Amino acid sequence: MLGNFVYCNPTKLIFGPDSLNSLGNELEKYGKKIMLVYGGGSIKKTGLYDKIISILSECGKTVVEDGGVMPNPTYEKLKEGMKIARENKVDFILAVGGGSVIDYSKAVSVSAYCEEDPWEKYFVRFEDVSCKIIPVGSVLTMVGTGSEMNGGSVITNREQMMKVGHVFGENVFPKFSILNPELTYTLPHRQMVAGFYDIMSHILEQYFSGTDDNTSDYIMEGLLKSLIHSARIAVKNPVDYEARSNIMWIATWALNTLVAKGKTTDWMVHMIGQAIGAYTDATHGMTLSAVSLAYYRYIMPYGMDKFVRYAVNVWGVNPEGKDKQTIAEQGLEEMGKFMRETGLAMTASEVGVTADMIPGIARATLIMDGGYKVLTTEEVEEILLESL
Amino acid sequence: MLGNFVYCNPTKLIFGPDSLNSLGNELEKYGKKIMLVYGGGSIKKTGLYDKIISILSECGKTVVEDGGVMPNPTYEKLKEGMKIARENKVDFILAVGGGSVIDYSKAVSVSAYCEEDPWEKYFVRFEDVSCKIIPVGSVLTMVGTGSEMNGGSVITNREQMMKVGHVFGENVFPKFSILNPELTYTLPHRQMVAGFYDIMSHILEQYFSGTDDNTSDYIMEGLLKSLIHSARIAVKNPVDYEARSNIMWIATWALNTLVAKGKTTDWMVHMIGQAIGAYTDATHGMTLSAVSLAYYRYIMPYGMDKFVRYAVNVWGVNPEGKDKQTIAEQGLEEMGKFMRETGLAMTASEVGVTADMIPGIARATLIMDGGYKVLTTEEVEEILLESL
Repeated sequence: MLGNFVYCNPTKLIFGPDSLNSLGNELEKYGKKIMLVYGGGSIKKTGLYDKIISILSECGKTVVEDGGVMPNPTYEKLKEGMKIARENKVDFILAVGGGSVIDYSKAVSVSAYCEEDPWEKYFVRFEDVSCKIIPVGSVLTMVGTGSEMNGGSVITNREQMMKVGHVFGENVFPKFSILNPELTYTLPHRQMVAGFYDIMSHILEQYFSGTDDNTSDYIMEGLLKSLIHSARIAVKNPVDYEARSNIMWIATWALNTLVAKGKTTDWMVHMIGQAIGAYTDATHGMTLSAVSLAYYRYIMPYGMDKFVRYAVNVWGVNPEGKDKQTIAEQGLEEMGKFMRETGLAMTASEVGVTADMIPGIARATLIMDGGYKVLTTEEVEEILLESL
Repeated sequence: MLGNFVYCNPTKLIFGPDSLNSLGNELEKYGKKIMLVYGGGSIKKTGLYDKIISILSECGKTVVEDGGVMPNPTYEKLKEGMKIARENKVDFILAVGGGSVIDYSKAVSVSAYCEEDPWEKYFVRFEDVSCKIIPVGSVLTMVGTGSEMNGGSVITNREQMMKVGHVFGENVFPKFSILNPELTYTLPHRQMVAGFYDIMSHILEQYFSGTDDNTSDYIMEGLLKSLIHSARIAVKNPVDYEARSNIMWIATWALNTLVAKGKTTDWMVHMIGQAIGAYTDATHGMTLSAVSLAYYRYIMPYGMDKFVRYAVNVWGVNPEGKDKQTIAEQGLEEMGKFMRETGLAMTASEVGVTADMIPGIARATLIMDGGYKVLTTEEVEEILLESL
């Protein structure tokens, strides 16, 4: 049911093959000193780094660099970034990369002037920002996290073996995001498909909740069908612009707060996946695919009608003459087939989980209560064992 | 295909039964003098007027009233509103009503300080705003137009028998819109269902274009299915909160620019409907339903594959063993059944069109080129005759 909520998403999205041409215009509104944040340096190989440096120089901006953001950005790295931002008094943070780079940039933007320990404030106590925020913009090179149009920021604390996300408010959302599907072509195949599953999981973890009639669920069924269709094309031909542009757009709308409106959300696959990530440093999307089927089979009895609807509306399972259990299981079988075809990790072992890690991962898993079943730590262990 | 486009929609939506409580907070950011715009006075009968006056008074605001906005707001009325806004130097326009009231308020906001004739500038030459814009906010009491989260403004020039819409940029979008589904309960049944069809038509006129694979089409199929489902419930029980809240939400997302991204758009049903409205002053949604089936039957051969997809994905037509034509026609038959059940006008005669008006209406119909077939004025006449 669509009860009381507020929707406000001021991020400006500039989409398409020519979108980078707008970067200069967008940056006009901000000061001179730009902190350029990026990952492992692939943007130098692809030539994107040079293009951006040249745009920034044409606009008369001074650039302070902060490269080397890792796939699961750490609290240690965040402390470096805070220092760079503060000491250079940067006016704007330009994140060039995927979700990790944007998540990290948002964390820097709210931490640089934070007077407390930002890990404790944001990722343990989940408090609101009370200090100056440095505005962030993004040039997206890898889709999946939706970080380009939301307030999400996931940071890993290696010392505490914790990977935790904070969802910040609109004042932390990127001011603009440049979405050029062609910039995602160079991503290695495995990273590409992991991103596809991250998107799918975002949608599913908002879909599998509630027993009401909610427009958000219909929108999500549309997004899922478009994603499955386009992913099948992109897996065979990663430079199919139509497929990659649809997927880029779906990724943004899957996690920019729209489809969660009026719903509770589950997020247990992400919680388990993030705990795995903190232990194994495996690719985020693969940690999700590795545990998803075991998780959904486990919670199916608690949300049977929605699993039946999912099987019929998303996977085209013909319900005639079948009982609910059969229909729902056939839906998950179709999903499994799609996942295997796509080349996703189908077991936790594939992403580096060993039996002895399981108690630790289960303890590190944050238990959320928005889905069909509130799990116990023992149940998380059971699901992990099942997915080995 | 999702080519180059910009998406930016900064309107803040405050949704739900308690949403009016946020009005005071939202108005804090603006000056003291509020221009309160409303329609025929039904908000006085329902008590909403008193509630709003009391909130404004508690916030220390001064109120300048501009009531009596008619269902198809006229250029003559607009001139009155411009004068009120300018002479009272209002800081903010609060629109309380449906699409007409919000459309009118936006027109006042961009015209009050316009140094040329605003009809000529905006509704004939379709120019951008170059003067000071008075910010607008809305409290929605009737759904359908999507005006609460877009830049659309439709004004009727009685003298010229023209009803024309201008789509303004983000700087004209309402700063906030308060969406309380319960405020829509008191609307007369006929107005309610006319609004439902307005929503459906908005979606269809963006859906029926292109032959590509576009995520927007999948989202629209979801919105249509949710709308059809909820409309069937609301027709029987207009105070079903779940149905009315879903419909309110669908209306906003059907026309806030999202689903048009990457697509061309048709809008011929609206163009014909608006021309009828200028002649008959009939309820907007009814002018659309009156001509829709004749229009879609006419263009079907030019966009056959999409009509087949529509029949199967939206109306659940079983395509097995049938040719395209049959599937597509069965889709429109199902749509017709739904429209009759809903109590919509099914012929142009029902909304006051007579045979002698047809040449004039056809000439007053703006021909658009985004759909499957660019019509001639003769073809518009033919469609109007067919729909009599």
